[in-house]
Amino acid sequence: MVSAMRYRLRAGLTATAVAGFLLLASAANAQVADPLPSWNEGPAKQAITSFVARVVQPGPDYVAPADRIAVFDNDGTLWAEQPVYFQAFFAIDRAKGLVARDPKLAALAAVKAAADDDLQALSALGEHGIAELVALTHSGMTPEAFIAEARRWLASARHPRLDRLFTDLTYQPQLELLGFLRANGFKTFIVSGGGIDFVRAFSESAYGIPPEQVIGSSSKTRFELEGGAARLIKLAEIGAIDDREGKPVNINLHIGRRPVLAVGNSDGDLAMLQYTASGQGPRLMVLIHHDDAEREYAYDRNSRVGRLDAALDEAEERGWTVVSIKRDWRVVFRAN
Amino acid sequence: MVSAMRYRLRAGLTATAVAGFLLLASAANAQVADPLPSWNEGPAKQAITSFVARVVQPGPDYVAPADRIAVFDNDGTLWAEQPVYFQAFFAIDRAKGLVARDPKLAALAAVKAAADDDLQALSALGEHGIAELVALTHSGMTPEAFIAEARRWLASARHPRLDRLFTDLTYQPQLELLGFLRANGFKTFIVSGGGIDFVRAFSESAYGIPPEQVIGSSSKTRFELEGGAARLIKLAEIGAIDDREGKPVNINLHIGRRPVLAVGNSDGDLAMLQYTASGQGPRLMVLIHHDDAEREYAYDRNSRVGRLDAALDEAEERGWTVVSIKRDWRVVFRAN
Repeated sequence: MVSAMRYRLRAGLTATAVAGFLLLASAANAQVADPLPSWNEGPAKQAITSFVARVVQPGPDYVAPADRIAVFDNDGTLWAEQPVYFQAFFAIDRAKGLVARDPKLAALAAVKAAADDDLQALSALGEHGIAELVALTHSGMTPEAFIAEARRWLASARHPRLDRLFTDLTYQPQLELLGFLRANGFKTFIVSGGGIDFVRAFSESAYGIPPEQVIGSSSKTRFELEGGAARLIKLAEIGAIDDREGKPVNINLHIGRRPVLAVGNSDGDLAMLQYTASGQGPRLMVLIHHDDAEREYAYDRNSRVGRLDAALDEAEERGWTVVSIKRDWRVVFRAN
Repeated sequence: MVSAMRYRLRAGLTATAVAGFLLLASAANAQVADPLPSWNEGPAKQAITSFVARVVQPGPDYVAPADRIAVFDNDGTLWAEQPVYFQAFFAIDRAKGLVARDPKLAALAAVKAAADDDLQALSALGEHGIAELVALTHSGMTPEAFIAEARRWLASARHPRLDRLFTDLTYQPQLELLGFLRANGFKTFIVSGGGIDFVRAFSESAYGIPPEQVIGSSSKTRFELEGGAARLIKLAEIGAIDDREGKPVNINLHIGRRPVLAVGNSDGDLAMLQYTASGQGPRLMVLIHHDDAEREYAYDRNSRVGRLDAALDEAEERGWTVVSIKRDWRVVFRAN
């Protein structure tokens, strides 16, 4: 018995040693290949790779794997957001479908604007109009049914100018960054101003981020029980707005620890970046600057969608990493 | 170049094959040992192990790892909850400390009852009184400071009858169950009626469950910025009550998919069990029945704390697994 145990122990140690060697060998191999091939060499790429190297290696800046929390905004950070948030295109298409079935709904100004494809009229209605549109088009069904509907739409709807599926407008350099972070023990989260269920419809297939690592704006839901079958129904009542100060609030609620790395692209991400920057130990704050009108869009301080103004000033003051799409990204959109 | 690549490919395949063999060998070893040694043989243990075997093996009941979501209530399910929820002991001790510094606070009936150790008077004040006590004792500080305070308390406060640290009143059979599930690719979550920050203070060290996999009742927080330093402050305003219908609502908000396995012990967990049971495919619903007055406590239909009545009826009707602590658990509390 004892000698059998000793034998097993010895065999176990050998096995561990061999497995360890194989891991080291594959790590050495991985270092040969550039983990961020779509990032041009330059200060942004350098800031990212040196930060990751510092926190994973033993030393004063080491961060335990459990604390390697990385948060990413979605619209304008992981995929494009012009001329309007893609979720607005979805809401507009849903509104058209609803009006086709029930023309009386066009009495609502926001629904009429959406059904007429009148983005000007819609944006003139302001936040209230958008809220009305989202409330109508995103409620009265289970989250599962909503997600199935969003997936059907994403499978065929195309961007008006770039003429691609919306999920093909995810950023290739960011897909590489997400993978690079995960390969280095980071847990990657989305913290989006967009609807949590809408983002969950594609986060796993597009980014490898499971639904439990998606935080977003949300509507309330109601629990229903019918003949023993339980389900939730999405209500036309706002639960959380995950934008600006709402981002750190929801990071604390959902994650319960401060991120060490945060990536955003607009003033809506500033509070999240400040919150990340204020933690103890090494931190990396990154802003994506949309300055490439040719390959994508160029916008910042005066944009209605994704305005980047106060956050750009603060990034410059505090030495946060600003990524120029034009200069830092060899390609913009995901490889098909 | 090509031949070097071929060589690396071949070496990689060999490495993968060796690593695979080692994994298989260690899996075979693990199967020899009972993963649930503190569970007596019987229908409950059998239901758990056969469910796990069915969902991880190829076949009609296979569940992909990403969907292996297991949710556990905390009070009465992962640790004891009598004579009152342990968080109430914490709130009482905090109230005493606050009154010692500011005697005027004793003007609040709930605070006076707490400071006098008068559980009768406190419970006579009902939910409103408890809410008042929690609001006072759990607000006005950052979540980090609150968690540090809860950890200091947990390090020394002892249970009045069982005379152990509260974290030593976690259930050994459940610690084994959590580990067994994780070893089989499940992601384990806590879904507690208790405060999310309070549970996060010990979930990782006691259960191996990181804060981002803890869902609970919560207060609202406010984002503050002072000289560039960002922080959150816990407010005396309720954000979410994670009990009864609130449990499936928060599971959807935080996790975004329906669990395949749910464990609870009271009517407060019934909606979570119904929600789990109503999903597609194989499911396991488990209720812990406290029937061991000698080793722990015996209570169910008439208990003020952790009442188990409607859920017990439904479990019997629907064939859910009911665990008898007396019969099914060889030991109750964690080994020290």
